[in-house]
Amino acid sequence: MAKITDLRMLLVDELRDIYHAEKQITRALPKMIKAATSERLKAGFEQHLGETQAQIERLEQCFELLDERVRGKTCEAMRGIIEECQTMLEEDLTPEVCDAVLVASAQKVEHYEIASYGTVIAWAKDLGLANVAKLLDETLEEEKATDVKLTQLATKEINRLAAKAVAA
Amino acid sequence: MAKITDLRMLLVDELRDIYHAEKQITRALPKMIKAATSERLKAGFEQHLGETQAQIERLEQCFELLDERVRGKTCEAMRGIIEECQTMLEEDLTPEVCDAVLVASAQKVEHYEIASYGTVIAWAKDLGLANVAKLLDETLEEEKATDVKLTQLATKEINRLAAKAVAA
Repeated sequence: MAKITDLRMLLVDELRDIYHAEKQITRALPKMIKAATSERLKAGFEQHLGETQAQIERLEQCFELLDERVRGKTCEAMRGIIEECQTMLEEDLTPEVCDAVLVASAQKVEHYEIASYGTVIAWAKDLGLANVAKLLDETLEEEKATDVKLTQLATKEINRLAAKAVAA
Repeated sequence: MAKITDLRMLLVDELRDIYHAEKQITRALPKMIKAATSERLKAGFEQHLGETQAQIERLEQCFELLDERVRGKTCEAMRGIIEECQTMLEEDLTPEVCDAVLVASAQKVEHYEIASYGTVIAWAKDLGLANVAKLLDETLEEEKATDVKLTQLATKEINRLAAKAVAA
């Protein structure tokens, strides 16, 4: 791999990290949908799976605009978040506690993305790449909206049920 | 380790994840301070190192209030974020681009913590553990404030310098 020496190369590198992160999410979400008990949570994850596929396409458009190869770079942070979620799901959880785990993991995913997209948008703007910044901003707004929805679902439904649930 | 079957056990488990994450941050920050060029960034990291030590003490108070052993549980996500930052710092970066990397990594750290503390506060409240929630909320507010400061520093100073920097 070429050495990174300027901000444009750093932008491309970070986009490859996010691209790999999004790909990991598309593989994890079907398992999370299957594991979820709350119908609203299942529906929320299904909607987000569709959004994630569109977000991957936007990243591919960004690589094209930058005249760079579409390629991912292993995102260790996302790997860690997903791995921890899967390990928890192997515990002997009640369905209500399982849903609480799923929401917690999903919010870690969203916050990783909020930080990453926030960064690449700021870099793209300072590099005068308004078209790239605009595409990424559409995704950032979706990630923020998903995080808000997850908080609402957790506080209005899932956490209360999990707090009441007693192991059989 | 005992199986996790209810929300209280999940809360303790997640607090151990955050405890380990905070410990990792106290080991990473001195290296980030050393690597930073911007005096404001250095000062910001130094301040956050002090805050992180206080946040670790608050977590220890939470374990005491919950009558649970003070113990960490490997946080793979934080390990990934810090590892990626250290790998980037080994690249042949200009000082300005190096600062941009440091801010980006620090914001990923903050967002991981914002998600985690947000989750454990919500769980503690639903479990009727107001004293635990209050302690954790103090930390959450510090993490949010740090993220805002990093955004300001990035957009007002660091990213612009990085965008102008050309490799020697």
